[in-house]
Amino acid sequence: MKVTVWNENIAEILTDEESQEYRNQVLAVHPNGIHNTVKEIIEELGDDVEVTTATLQDENIGLSDEVLNNTDVLIWWAHMGHDQVPDEIVAKIHQRVLAGMGLILLHSAHYSKLLKTILGTTGDLKWRDDTYERMFCVNPSHPIAKGIPEHFEVGAEECYAECFDIPKPDDTIFISWFDIGEVFRSGCTWTRGRGKIFYFQPGHETNTSYHHPVIRQIIKNATQWVAPTGYRENFGAPHIDETLEDLRAQGKL
Amino acid sequence: MKVTVWNENIAEILTDEESQEYRNQVLAVHPNGIHNTVKEIIEELGDDVEVTTATLQDENIGLSDEVLNNTDVLIWWAHMGHDQVPDEIVAKIHQRVLAGMGLILLHSAHYSKLLKTILGTTGDLKWRDDTYERMFCVNPSHPIAKGIPEHFEVGAEECYAECFDIPKPDDTIFISWFDIGEVFRSGCTWTRGRGKIFYFQPGHETNTSYHHPVIRQIIKNATQWVAPTGYRENFGAPHIDETLEDLRAQGKL
Amino acid sequence: MKVTVWNENIAEILTDEESQEYRNQVLAVHPNGIHNTVKEIIEELGDDVEVTTATLQDENIGLSDEVLNNTDVLIWWAHMGHDQVPDEIVAKIHQRVLAGMGLILLHSAHYSKLLKTILGTTGDLKWRDDTYERMFCVNPSHPIAKGIPEHFEVGAEECYAECFDIPKPDDTIFISWFDIGEVFRSGCTWTRGRGKIFYFQPGHETNTSYHHPVIRQIIKNATQWVAPTGYRENFGAPHIDETLEDLRAQGKL
Amino acid sequence: MKVTVWNENIAEILTDEESQEYRNQVLAVHPNGIHNTVKEIIEELGDDVEVTTATLQDENIGLSDEVLNNTDVLIWWAHMGHDQVPDEIVAKIHQRVLAGMGLILLHSAHYSKLLKTILGTTGDLKWRDDTYERMFCVNPSHPIAKGIPEHFEVGAEECYAECFDIPKPDDTIFISWFDIGEVFRSGCTWTRGRGKIFYFQPGHETNTSYHHPVIRQIIKNATQWVAPTGYRENFGAPHIDETLEDLRAQGKL
Repeated sequence: MKVTVWNENIAEILTDEESQEYRNQVLAVHPNGIHNTVKEIIEELGDDVEVTTATLQDENIGLSDEVLNNTDVLIWWAHMGHDQVPDEIVAKIHQRVLAGMGLILLHSAHYSKLLKTILGTTGDLKWRDDTYERMFCVNPSHPIAKGIPEHFEVGAEECYAECFDIPKPDDTIFISWFDIGEVFRSGCTWTRGRGKIFYFQPGHETNTSYHHPVIRQIIKNATQWVAPTGYRENFGAPHIDETLEDLRAQGKL
Repeated sequence: MKVTVWNENIAEILTDEESQEYRNQVLAVHPNGIHNTVKEIIEELGDDVEVTTATLQDENIGLSDEVLNNTDVLIWWAHMGHDQVPDEIVAKIHQRVLAGMGLILLHSAHYSKLLKTILGTTGDLKWRDDTYERMFCVNPSHPIAKGIPEHFEVGAEECYAECFDIPKPDDTIFISWFDIGEVFRSGCTWTRGRGKIFYFQPGHETNTSYHHPVIRQIIKNATQWVAPTGYRENFGAPHIDETLEDLRAQGKL
Repeated sequence: MKVTVWNENIAEILTDEESQEYRNQVLAVHPNGIHNTVKEIIEELGDDVEVTTATLQDENIGLSDEVLNNTDVLIWWAHMGHDQVPDEIVAKIHQRVLAGMGLILLHSAHYSKLLKTILGTTGDLKWRDDTYERMFCVNPSHPIAKGIPEHFEVGAEECYAECFDIPKPDDTIFISWFDIGEVFRSGCTWTRGRGKIFYFQPGHETNTSYHHPVIRQIIKNATQWVAPTGYRENFGAPHIDETLEDLRAQGKL
Repeated sequence: MKVTVWNENIAEILTDEESQEYRNQVLAVHPNGIHNTVKEIIEELGDDVEVTTATLQDENIGLSDEVLNNTDVLIWWAHMGHDQVPDEIVAKIHQRVLAGMGLILLHSAHYSKLLKTILGTTGDLKWRDDTYERMFCVNPSHPIAKGIPEHFEVGAEECYAECFDIPKPDDTIFISWFDIGEVFRSGCTWTRGRGKIFYFQPGHETNTSYHHPVIRQIIKNATQWVAPTGYRENFGAPHIDETLEDLRAQGKL
């Protein structure tokens, strides 16, 4: 399985003076960028998984046709740079998901072109920084919940709150509680074409959620769950040339 | 539409001395019993709806075959007396739901024989009294959510908490936040046979939720939504005697 | 309720000589165009429903902002002209659906920009003309199935066959059998934002399905089911300025 | 993983004279009984899977507490003997499913006490022998569909037809076409508690479906999919003794 971790990598490389304190906060949590923090999570899956990273600054944002056609699972973190992702690449990722590639949308990817295009809703929600989060597993038999406790303390995170404008999830696996009086469906799955999709809320850039052992386990479980069971090769709406009757007439049945 | 509101009516009629304070608390909220409080909610639906009550103390717990066969929507509140509901009547209600009768299960009915029998799960959850609840609508286009705000303050209620052992709901319409650090899928729907079912969490006997205008509206909306669109008359697994081929051979097509 | 029936109206007005026989076949079934046949179905809902038509040949394809903002349910028939529908209008319809407008996609609208954009899948299927269809209701308690028999003979129709590339339906209400050895999920629902969507397979332009009483009833039921229960007015991702704690501190709770 | 294949084993051992032709038909397809035919399918999963059989004639129908508590996946074939399965054992299987055991219900198990008890519906359908079946995969990304073609010829089978009285499946994976003009949701999944359930229609005792390579693959895929990801150990509705506030007050957070 080949996994590509994509990160806009904007906060990590801000150069203007007034942003340096913020940038340092991000780098204190993610010394090599969010993409490399997530890459290290995926590497814990062992040698059967090959993981690389790509960022907005790379040529073709790191997602050439060759890279994309060799990616089985794409993990996506983005926040400030949604508009900088070219529409043509969004369209290619969309097609690749329909063909079977797994997709994990992290945190502020709720507002990515990817989520809006593939799911067809706005991704709207409510938000506030500096809150406390506790996460509940409401679908304990789902493979993504394997080994995950009934609830656990996420700790300091950005509050994302309902009403989250998403299509009805195939499965709502996690629901989060926030101390300021909000709830959120924080882990949801969908299938589109042959591709499986998981949205997962934690991961504000200055919070340490991706170092939380339970959250790391969820991301690993999700990577395995969204992994393709096979790819669709032929698209289109073919005329049925050989009906059951035809097959019978030809002695093929 | 004929609605029957069933209440175990136990707390309301306790006679032992040490229970009188508790009983008075219940009667302070429900002067004529929980069934009559709920009946008044349903009466607000107007003259098209005929509503009666039944309790555990009535003959056949108020649910003779005649009553049941003339009930389009059954609303059920129970807590301490689950075991006193006869299995034969549970089986009859189950059959009536499969035939098309709507069913609204309120609050501690999560542990009723009805829920366990019809849904096939334990109804297990976690609980604690004297908490504060806020409810979020996560399915704003559902008819049960018509006119309901995105979120509203329930106020003092008994906390019911995840993981709630129910089958995956057809629709999860409400999710609740509790101040002690818990969340709960507080309004869920299922369909079984021709019957529609709504579970709704608020309604601890000493709390005033059923006097809350939004909660009253939800119960009214739910009554209209679970109302049958038609009844199934024939049960069984018939042999297909007239296939399409038969019909053609007989010149009926 | 205001219903707008949109039809590409292409087959009905073909002028080239070799298309006249085909055109006459269409007009024999739909003397005033498919839009007016469908309009007559909706008019059977009575005076509470106001129904108008729009076609590809109208200015702004008949869907100016004013028309769209006053449409509660949009019914869409299209086949050859998908590409002629402007992207900007597709985007506006998409937004209007997310705000609450109901949408019924008929027959070859499986390949419309609308379906592809709103649902995010290809709409691919297999097809063959001149087949025989029988339709089964597999969700008898759904409002769209009200009064519809367990199965009925559609008769001559174009076969649409699985695997239909759509997101998992909220509800699959009808499944069709075709004599050439194919099956199809012929009536499916989804919700996106506040909007409800129904895809319904019958309606090949030279077949008489829209004159079939059961199919007419299904379209009427669907129109009532997709009708909005309310509109969403505010889009965006607001910062939570008044948390529960804030409200308490301000004495508002 | 430990798999137990249960078969009522009635047709295989009929002793009355007039049943011998029928019995011989069954034994011609299943020389060692249906349970051993299915056992051989599961054995193809390799050494990681331990598979045993149990029948109605065994003590405790072969499902002692010890056997049941060591079974990870139970596969169930039954037809004439539904009533002979003791209610207490049905209740124990039900509890074991809620705890996490996977369950595969084959063919006429649609009318087993197990299906009726766990799913809460009648399992009613329509039927006719001696028909021709073709199966379509409508959920190609589901693990149970891994490696399965878009459609394939089942061949001679007993027709089971809609409307099938089951709760809305979590996933409908297969839909079947029958030559006599019927359709059927022939492969469906549900989750109850921690347990996953798969119903699969083929397997009439005198037909050879369980020797069909695609059907064998589906049964193997399903066995792996319903296998537990973990067991639930504690049942009940506990009082929440340590709230988030309590934990904070105790310095545990």
